[in-house]
Amino acid sequence: MPKSAIYPGSFDPVTFGHIDLIERASNIFDEVIVAVASNTVKQPFFTTEERLKLLKEATKNIKNIRVEIFDGLVIEYARKNDANCLIRGLRMISDFEYELQMALTNRRLDKTIETIFLMPSEKNAFISSTLIKEAASLGADISSFVPECVVEVFKNKLKS
Amino acid sequence: MPKSAIYPGSFDPVTFGHIDLIERASNIFDEVIVAVASNTVKQPFFTTEERLKLLKEATKNIKNIRVEIFDGLVIEYARKNDANCLIRGLRMISDFEYELQMALTNRRLDKTIETIFLMPSEKNAFISSTLIKEAASLGADISSFVPECVVEVFKNKLKS
Amino acid sequence: MPKSAIYPGSFDPVTFGHIDLIERASNIFDEVIVAVASNTVKQPFFTTEERLKLLKEATKNIKNIRVEIFDGLVIEYARKNDANCLIRGLRMISDFEYELQMALTNRRLDKTIETIFLMPSEKNAFISSTLIKEAASLGADISSFVPECVVEVFKNKLKS
Amino acid sequence: MPKSAIYPGSFDPVTFGHIDLIERASNIFDEVIVAVASNTVKQPFFTTEERLKLLKEATKNIKNIRVEIFDGLVIEYARKNDANCLIRGLRMISDFEYELQMALTNRRLDKTIETIFLMPSEKNAFISSTLIKEAASLGADISSFVPECVVEVFKNKLKS
Amino acid sequence: MPKSAIYPGSFDPVTFGHIDLIERASNIFDEVIVAVASNTVKQPFFTTEERLKLLKEATKNIKNIRVEIFDGLVIEYARKNDANCLIRGLRMISDFEYELQMALTNRRLDKTIETIFLMPSEKNAFISSTLIKEAASLGADISSFVPECVVEVFKNKLKS
Amino acid sequence: MPKSAIYPGSFDPVTFGHIDLIERASNIFDEVIVAVASNTVKQPFFTTEERLKLLKEATKNIKNIRVEIFDGLVIEYARKNDANCLIRGLRMISDFEYELQMALTNRRLDKTIETIFLMPSEKNAFISSTLIKEAASLGADISSFVPECVVEVFKNKLKS
Repeated sequence: MPKSAIYPGSFDPVTFGHIDLIERASNIFDEVIVAVASNTVKQPFFTTEERLKLLKEATKNIKNIRVEIFDGLVIEYARKNDANCLIRGLRMISDFEYELQMALTNRRLDKTIETIFLMPSEKNAFISSTLIKEAASLGADISSFVPECVVEVFKNKLKS
Repeated sequence: MPKSAIYPGSFDPVTFGHIDLIERASNIFDEVIVAVASNTVKQPFFTTEERLKLLKEATKNIKNIRVEIFDGLVIEYARKNDANCLIRGLRMISDFEYELQMALTNRRLDKTIETIFLMPSEKNAFISSTLIKEAASLGADISSFVPECVVEVFKNKLKS
Repeated sequence: MPKSAIYPGSFDPVTFGHIDLIERASNIFDEVIVAVASNTVKQPFFTTEERLKLLKEATKNIKNIRVEIFDGLVIEYARKNDANCLIRGLRMISDFEYELQMALTNRRLDKTIETIFLMPSEKNAFISSTLIKEAASLGADISSFVPECVVEVFKNKLKS
Repeated sequence: MPKSAIYPGSFDPVTFGHIDLIERASNIFDEVIVAVASNTVKQPFFTTEERLKLLKEATKNIKNIRVEIFDGLVIEYARKNDANCLIRGLRMISDFEYELQMALTNRRLDKTIETIFLMPSEKNAFISSTLIKEAASLGADISSFVPECVVEVFKNKLKS
Repeated sequence: MPKSAIYPGSFDPVTFGHIDLIERASNIFDEVIVAVASNTVKQPFFTTEERLKLLKEATKNIKNIRVEIFDGLVIEYARKNDANCLIRGLRMISDFEYELQMALTNRRLDKTIETIFLMPSEKNAFISSTLIKEAASLGADISSFVPECVVEVFKNKLKS
Repeated sequence: MPKSAIYPGSFDPVTFGHIDLIERASNIFDEVIVAVASNTVKQPFFTTEERLKLLKEATKNIKNIRVEIFDGLVIEYARKNDANCLIRGLRMISDFEYELQMALTNRRLDKTIETIFLMPSEKNAFISSTLIKEAASLGADISSFVPECVVEVFKNKLKS
């Protein structure tokens, strides 16, 4: 009986921090579904399709994973996929607070689904999609934060 | 000489966390004025009148309280009502930081008015109006976070 | 019917931070009982009697207060004194965590007793009895952290 | 191929917080080894054998678990048991910091072993073995924090 | 060979907290370049020129400093000015997290530039440009948070 | 006129985290005095002389530094050495709180001496002398946390 876990996020764009976490999760669970949220609170920089495509490209060598788009409640999505775990990364304090709040909210909506937290490598722990987008738009070389495919798409997007 | 305390907030919408705090405050002070801010920094989801009405409905069985709208500075409002205490809830760390900052700012504006902090029950400590609005808009059942009257108004609002 | 509040602590020794809080509490409550714990987890530097005497001396001009020794559970002591509030100061984050933990433990032991948190002046917010004792033992002038009576007793104690 | 996880701790004594976490872990992993540290930094209140016995008694109805004593490095113990996950609970901020520090230290000692963090129920999140021991020694009724078997042993231990 | 440090910020508007930090930095470094960001993520309340003018006026008596506008990446600006230090203030926890994240991002972009953190006086540690703007727009007297020149400009801006 | 900075600590023992910070400080200041506290609150594992010797050995290739023993107040020591800066590392949140508290205490004792905070590399940010001592005493290979000379001394110390 395979056990699945969902790793939900906006992945706007995927960073080395996300990839680090996906690799760790794929070592623990039989299958990890990396789920790109199409309904995000903030307007994303990349479209849902761009985010999906970059994520697939960036994780093509990781086994036991599936990359998909989801909308609606993450717990509904987990139920539909027979997954009983949500995976989240622990990065920083303020992050941690928000993550706990979200995990407790999800647990109250469905107590059979557990949120588990993994820790990225310390060299990836501070990487923030938001800061990367700011830095890239000011011309910074972001190749130490995101995979090559993301660097390329950024360049094209910022040119246009 | 009765002592009044003000519990200011945006209450967008009122949650079980707010009600928990209002009950605790009503056991300590002779009168608690629950004050709905009409001038909020962020655009509220509910109108000031909706927020007032839901708050009144949700707290109708609590003694020693008064529910009102206020605009302008909260310390001016406290002075007008002869209240020397502001009440705030302590929920989480990031929250706590912001609350301290606001309390110290208010104290410098009027040093005779004291901010006191109460702790909600742990089962209400993580409830966030923001997360509830997100969850409700995605179709979640939010009846374990907010009173029945709020559930109803949400349904009507989201239908339209 | 007067409302009492308990401000419990080890006061080893009383600092300007404690006095700040006692003054604020005395403006809110009809009576504040400042309660010196005789059974402390860590071995105190000053005896219970010394801590009581210094606290009394340092607060002699504050109205509406009573300074006493207590042992046993603070909630038992509150019940015996018909007090329904415990007062605690909010200083720093790590402090805050411990305080919340203790307040929730006390609430579960007696849910009729509420812990309320007050904020000292920012100029007193960082004062720590522990650091003061370390500094004094190394010869520092601690007169900007503690009242004159404490400075004197420290000098005598360190001489002997 | 079954996957095992280790939940190490001093369990001095086991609380409802620990039991909460063990239940959650047993729903995720094929086997959870609850490992009582015999070499603790602080002198424990209960002996290793008492801690083991209470833990076994308190978890006798939870499936998929094994309760054992271990000494030495937790990562050595994990290797010997073919376990690739360590389980830890996330309770509070200061806790969280220490936990991250320990997890990163363990990861550097053996990068094949992953620490995963679970969140107890909010009603168990603030329970602290240290505060319980303090409260019990002052005569508090601790039956809402620890299982009945622990209450009994405490009573006997405090009598003698 | 003089050593320069950059103190970058949006200064929207300059507060006593910023001035406090600039004074401290000017006592440590041979030259401090106070750099007003023209490309801010959030829409500023004051124009870049207003922010520059107020900052110059407010710091005219501080030696060893230069006030300038910059755009683009702060590390590029530091390189152009032969400055190997960025100065940032430490105020509060959530602040601290963001600052660490930004500092580590900047370090990865240019490892020769070091971010150093200074602590404002405790009486200035909680001052927030955001809260001041809110308070001023509601009619508060903000003269204990910002220099006189800022008070005046605010009055004129809010009248119009 | 050379500017000196003091980096005080117990260095029990020196770790890669300390060395990281000393290197950064030596790039900013004309001279850095690394000062080993002989009067520590907790009983150190290594003697003052051992700590000094290991620190000297571990930093022998870093320019612009001096390694010394000090006792008494660090601000007295700074005054005697004409140093107007104390250097401290920022590692984690709980750390940060304590560091701010100590820095504000030192500032009140001597307002002419400024504490500045530097950030170690993320790969060194979590290294803790306390955890290393625990791990080493349980037989762990600590060579990725401390320099070779410390590894050797540990081995000899633990054998005896």
